[in-house]
Amino acid sequence: MSAPTGINVAIVGVGLVGSSVISQLTTIPNLASQIHIVALQNSKKTLLSTPTSPLSLAPPADWKTLLANSSQSALPLADLAKKLQQIAQESKRHTVVVDNTSNDSVASFYPEFLKAGLSVVTPNKKGLSGSLDLYKAILSASTGSDKGPLMYGESTVGAGLPILTTLKDLVQTGDEIHKIEGVLSGTLSYIFNEWSTPAGGSKKFSEVVKVAKDQGYTEPHPADDLSGSDVSRKLTILSRLIPSLTDKLPKGFESVPTHSLTPAPLESVTSGDEYVQKLPEFDGDFDKLNAAAREEGCVLRYVGVIDARAGEVKASLEKYPKDHPFATSLSGSDNILAFHTKRYSQRPLLVQGAGAGAEVTAMGVVADLVRVAERRG
Amino acid sequence: MSAPTGINVAIVGVGLVGSSVISQLTTIPNLASQIHIVALQNSKKTLLSTPTSPLSLAPPADWKTLLANSSQSALPLADLAKKLQQIAQESKRHTVVVDNTSNDSVASFYPEFLKAGLSVVTPNKKGLSGSLDLYKAILSASTGSDKGPLMYGESTVGAGLPILTTLKDLVQTGDEIHKIEGVLSGTLSYIFNEWSTPAGGSKKFSEVVKVAKDQGYTEPHPADDLSGSDVSRKLTILSRLIPSLTDKLPKGFESVPTHSLTPAPLESVTSGDEYVQKLPEFDGDFDKLNAAAREEGCVLRYVGVIDARAGEVKASLEKYPKDHPFATSLSGSDNILAFHTKRYSQRPLLVQGAGAGAEVTAMGVVADLVRVAERRG
Repeated sequence: MSAPTGINVAIVGVGLVGSSVISQLTTIPNLASQIHIVALQNSKKTLLSTPTSPLSLAPPADWKTLLANSSQSALPLADLAKKLQQIAQESKRHTVVVDNTSNDSVASFYPEFLKAGLSVVTPNKKGLSGSLDLYKAILSASTGSDKGPLMYGESTVGAGLPILTTLKDLVQTGDEIHKIEGVLSGTLSYIFNEWSTPAGGSKKFSEVVKVAKDQGYTEPHPADDLSGSDVSRKLTILSRLIPSLTDKLPKGFESVPTHSLTPAPLESVTSGDEYVQKLPEFDGDFDKLNAAAREEGCVLRYVGVIDARAGEVKASLEKYPKDHPFATSLSGSDNILAFHTKRYSQRPLLVQGAGAGAEVTAMGVVADLVRVAERRG
Repeated sequence: MSAPTGINVAIVGVGLVGSSVISQLTTIPNLASQIHIVALQNSKKTLLSTPTSPLSLAPPADWKTLLANSSQSALPLADLAKKLQQIAQESKRHTVVVDNTSNDSVASFYPEFLKAGLSVVTPNKKGLSGSLDLYKAILSASTGSDKGPLMYGESTVGAGLPILTTLKDLVQTGDEIHKIEGVLSGTLSYIFNEWSTPAGGSKKFSEVVKVAKDQGYTEPHPADDLSGSDVSRKLTILSRLIPSLTDKLPKGFESVPTHSLTPAPLESVTSGDEYVQKLPEFDGDFDKLNAAAREEGCVLRYVGVIDARAGEVKASLEKYPKDHPFATSLSGSDNILAFHTKRYSQRPLLVQGAGAGAEVTAMGVVADLVRVAERRG
């Protein structure tokens, strides 16, 4: 073939995940020859390749310094899209935007990137779990033409775990999804694995939350995890891959009934430290919940449930028998997801493992990029 | 796009899995419009499409009768390949051979199909687990050119479970495989789940094998399962996806140290019925093994192990603590696979579910066909 092979990649957001993506793309020989980084952008600066000077970011080059020293201040997204279209044309390579931010504004721009012929790969849940209008705009802009742009977001649910790929395979090959159920938040997995154990135990809920916060397992404000919104976002993304549920959640994650673990009197506390300080006042309530579950031979788990046959989607606190996989086989901040389908009806298809962390999140992003390279490179 | 879209598929072998593949391809609307069946072949007959009369196999058409009534007797593989090349050229569509047989002879022909520009998708373990020469011939014929033929075999390990895809993603994104370990035979999973339980139990090994045979869970001759060769074939296929182990097994599955469960005096018994009749004579030996494991607080499981750092691959009988996932969370004929890697080092990435059966095996085949259609359609 005489045409250049491989794809171009523009990386927006160079924090923990973005840095890990850059590291994987520049240091793994097979990838470096196929996937060419043509742009880096953070909130301050943009670094762009030109036909005469492609970016050279592999070590010993120091991309952080190169980006910081760039004379180009951060481009508005519309300008970035135009630049990337130009780079795609000049290089004759398909070009992908990787959004490693957690911004709503970047996510809202996906339809424009796609309409400009640029594929989008992202671990950012905001776009795929947002309003149905945004979701439909993303879908229609990414499935229009035969060799057109693609949208992938494997890392939005379970990081590098094969969750969206598996669900897509089940649906595309005609399996019927009955129910999807699982522990989808690494933070809430850790908290409940420590607090509500098959063997019982005497830890207080607030103590476990404090340890989780101190170790960096929670967001700076633990209520951002305890609200359950991370779970309802992931449920939205999964639900929309099930044909009968695609239109089910018009406001995206806000349409998902979500049990918040934050006690009502703490809902207005804006400081994470104050929140953790006051949480012990409610340990009695949490103890009662745990004791009630224990009396039934159960543990408590914060789960996401999609009952496709009943058309029900919810993020909630549920009881599971002590010998259930959600009780016995989870530890640390593992995610677990059970697919109950027509084919996997007697026993579900299970996927389990670390569902958060920069390295495994970047892995899902890079695996998506390999798929785009296979299809459009 | 003016070029025809989608791919052609030739189906060799129309038994249980083949029938399920045909059913999925002809009844799922999205697939039927993208994946065109152009040939069916069994050991007796071949049914071919022609430019003027494409095959129409969707119900109410009865493909079994159409194939049986075909005037064309089964083509030698070389002739089939030529016909398919011609069909590919006339239709301007990439063409895939799906091998649903368990024949060595069809598997040995993969390099020729690939050299003819035809992709190969298969649940048949014989090719990918055979000699290193055959494996290398398959590899070199399927990765030569940019838009050339592809080789996929997701269903060779764990049927529809996302096992090979996950391993490829881990390797391609630069993760380091430390160890892969799991229960890979549905039949041996069932036998050990029934016989060696955390709660103890009084079942005899031979009884459990007899029930498994009576219910059709074993091959007609149970020794074909109890030999462990199904496990060593799957280990070979997995090992070869790990760069440091690609050349490790020169004779393929025959190079894998494999613990046979057949008592030495029964090795020459060629009748499955006689085998089951004589197996009770050895229950004492099996009881001792189980009791010894129990004394250590363990159960027995027949597993496949790939220790990539030590360069060791083996199919063997191992003890696992009663609270290990292989002991607690398996039931029926489930497969489970644990990927221990640099990224998933604290706790492994786990995939679990039914690893055998026509429907889920066909699902893996069809998911592979969708991937070929995405890349070459």
